[in-house]
Amino acid sequence: MDRVLISSIKNAQKEANLKGRVINIRDLSNVSFFQLMDYTGSIQVVYSSKLDIKIGDLISVIGEIVEEKRAKSGFEVQASKIELISGSSEDLPFEISKPDLKLQLTNLLDWRTISLRHPKIIAIFKLYDILLSEYETVMREEGFTEVKTPKIIETASEGGANFFKIQYFEKEAYLAQSPQLYKQILTGVFERVFEIGSVFRAEPHFTTRHVNEYTGLDAEMGMIDSFYDVTAMLNKVMKKIFKGINEKGSQYLKLYNVELKEVPEKIPHIKLAEVKKIIKDKYNYTVPEGVDIDPEAERLASRYAKEELKSDFLFVTHYPWKDKPFYTMPADDEQKETLGFDLLYKGMELATGSQRIHQYDKLIENMKKKGVKEKGLEFYLETFKFAMPPHGGWGLGSERIIQMILGLGTVKEAVLFPRDVKRLRP
Amino acid sequence: MDRVLISSIKNAQKEANLKGRVINIRDLSNVSFFQLMDYTGSIQVVYSSKLDIKIGDLISVIGEIVEEKRAKSGFEVQASKIELISGSSEDLPFEISKPDLKLQLTNLLDWRTISLRHPKIIAIFKLYDILLSEYETVMREEGFTEVKTPKIIETASEGGANFFKIQYFEKEAYLAQSPQLYKQILTGVFERVFEIGSVFRAEPHFTTRHVNEYTGLDAEMGMIDSFYDVTAMLNKVMKKIFKGINEKGSQYLKLYNVELKEVPEKIPHIKLAEVKKIIKDKYNYTVPEGVDIDPEAERLASRYAKEELKSDFLFVTHYPWKDKPFYTMPADDEQKETLGFDLLYKGMELATGSQRIHQYDKLIENMKKKGVKEKGLEFYLETFKFAMPPHGGWGLGSERIIQMILGLGTVKEAVLFPRDVKRLRP
Repeated sequence: MDRVLISSIKNAQKEANLKGRVINIRDLSNVSFFQLMDYTGSIQVVYSSKLDIKIGDLISVIGEIVEEKRAKSGFEVQASKIELISGSSEDLPFEISKPDLKLQLTNLLDWRTISLRHPKIIAIFKLYDILLSEYETVMREEGFTEVKTPKIIETASEGGANFFKIQYFEKEAYLAQSPQLYKQILTGVFERVFEIGSVFRAEPHFTTRHVNEYTGLDAEMGMIDSFYDVTAMLNKVMKKIFKGINEKGSQYLKLYNVELKEVPEKIPHIKLAEVKKIIKDKYNYTVPEGVDIDPEAERLASRYAKEELKSDFLFVTHYPWKDKPFYTMPADDEQKETLGFDLLYKGMELATGSQRIHQYDKLIENMKKKGVKEKGLEFYLETFKFAMPPHGGWGLGSERIIQMILGLGTVKEAVLFPRDVKRLRP
Repeated sequence: MDRVLISSIKNAQKEANLKGRVINIRDLSNVSFFQLMDYTGSIQVVYSSKLDIKIGDLISVIGEIVEEKRAKSGFEVQASKIELISGSSEDLPFEISKPDLKLQLTNLLDWRTISLRHPKIIAIFKLYDILLSEYETVMREEGFTEVKTPKIIETASEGGANFFKIQYFEKEAYLAQSPQLYKQILTGVFERVFEIGSVFRAEPHFTTRHVNEYTGLDAEMGMIDSFYDVTAMLNKVMKKIFKGINEKGSQYLKLYNVELKEVPEKIPHIKLAEVKKIIKDKYNYTVPEGVDIDPEAERLASRYAKEELKSDFLFVTHYPWKDKPFYTMPADDEQKETLGFDLLYKGMELATGSQRIHQYDKLIENMKKKGVKEKGLEFYLETFKFAMPPHGGWGLGSERIIQMILGLGTVKEAVLFPRDVKRLRP
């Protein structure tokens, strides 16, 4: 008998074969009810003989599908035959049928291979799947070509965060901390490119917003008139992603009581210098010396955007020249500000981007002023002698989007198998 | 004036602004013709004043769009104003406007950032983009959840090819040579998963079919009845990919004079032992001792499939137990054969897959027999105590598909910035 997928049930049916996992059981004296979940949905099953299965078992059910008004799907299965496909040889390390797992983060992650099976955790990664799908779709709609650039690179010279070192045959090499240089080069080929790829950051952070390996949603677009073309495109992308998650992920958002608001047609932009002034005047907060902005200032900037501009999103622009990598386009001749921006959402930085320098001479000059060496970057610099378009782009942290949408305590909950300074397993 | 994208031109237009790269120039005495390419297409431009631009320049054109029967698009642009957006400060290292670059592989790759701009090379990666898009689409249609699993792993114990070692803070770690163990675990969560991700292989090969970093198209499906469910799914996936490439990539295939045949509804399956017998009987070729199959035998197996079974594709199944990793489901109790398969296309292995062992005891027993240690695999093995579904899957090399479709001399030509033993740059 062919397997019937739960989501495909639209009619009553005399005899059907369903397969899936038992996610909870209610055992009454003469009859048992349980919920069966396959990869398309879940349904209630009634069985009136002795039930010889446990929560978590994978089973095959043969039975009649009948209409049942009280059931969410409108149907239930009256099972006549139940067969075990695969069972557990030990008790599960925690109770998986509770509405909330309520495990401590360490336990949640140590037992990740099993804790992932909880419906609320499955929901996180179903939303993540939708996010990836929406990003791919909108980027293609906008004429971006999907590319895959190398993660093993020769020189750790891009600037910024720390690199992991690898042994590459006889040489040393590094893990890419972004596709930055490659995606820029590729605007000279495809004009518009995007990449979904692994990003490796050897930052020894213990925070709720960092992991050492994550999936970056990168994009780079050429022939721009100004860096506002880049923020406008990112605005459009975020709008599409949120719309898609709302439409296709409502059942998962509901598990977290989340109602996702539309992304504004035009996310407000404020220059960093002005942001600092505003949060000083309004909230009496001063960003500490030595950093361009800190998490507290990001929270306050978002608070201002929310209260005064009615927006959960905010572009903070014109980051200082001294804090931005060598490829960032300066906003002025005195190296004060750059055409760099961050996209904040509810106090969290989701994306970083900028217009980049596309003129060879200007790039070399900027590197000199910053004291960045050309060695190892020759292949990149050379390209700029050959008609590179004015361009800019962003790096968007995929897992942070889901973290922020669901209000998860740490980004690690939005990574299937997160990596941090102490965690390499599972 | 808003930019007009070349592919959007459907009518004559008094005044329009186009932007793009000049890809060739024909300079006559009073008039110049050149081809302008943007990220959506290319069009002929006529200009009757002195032309002060070079091949490769990025320009803005203002002019009238008129119908022109002889042009491919049916239109040409009569330019009234041309402005340079970005030019080259040096002559290009090779002539980019020739129909074929005809560079030696070393030059092609050394100058990769520029050679990628040639229309025939752009075509390779436009097809690659379509491939990714089709894979994502068909996997979602079939109910697979897209996942991202870690590329930094603790233990190099999966078996098979060599691992790159990395310095992970105070510890040593490795780069994943496949998402194998993680995707298996995830069949217990999502039943069906797919991943598009970086694969790292520290194999010191100098061949036309290996690179040390590539993009794997992985999938794993649970609740299978037999491993033929897996090959049937892969068959469906290949059919969809080829159809999509044919429909959406025809202009790129044409540049290579390729006509892509449909993938058969049912790709033939032959057991490896039988394959060996056939190529011995028919072509008098014996596979060397010590390997399960070699490239020459793969070519002959494909030749047989082509000649006798009228198929460019062939599933070779039941690889020997001694050559397959510990997680591969044995086909019999005597550890002779496994439920492992390769998918060959025109003599090249595109995918490797198998049914996996899903029972804890059987897995431990198989590891013992193979002498594989449990250390470092505890998180994986532990999972099998808790009702894992019967499952199987494949790893498909994305770049090889494009290599084989276009008949490229080496898989490196199908990688934007390939990595081999000697090449870490660009």
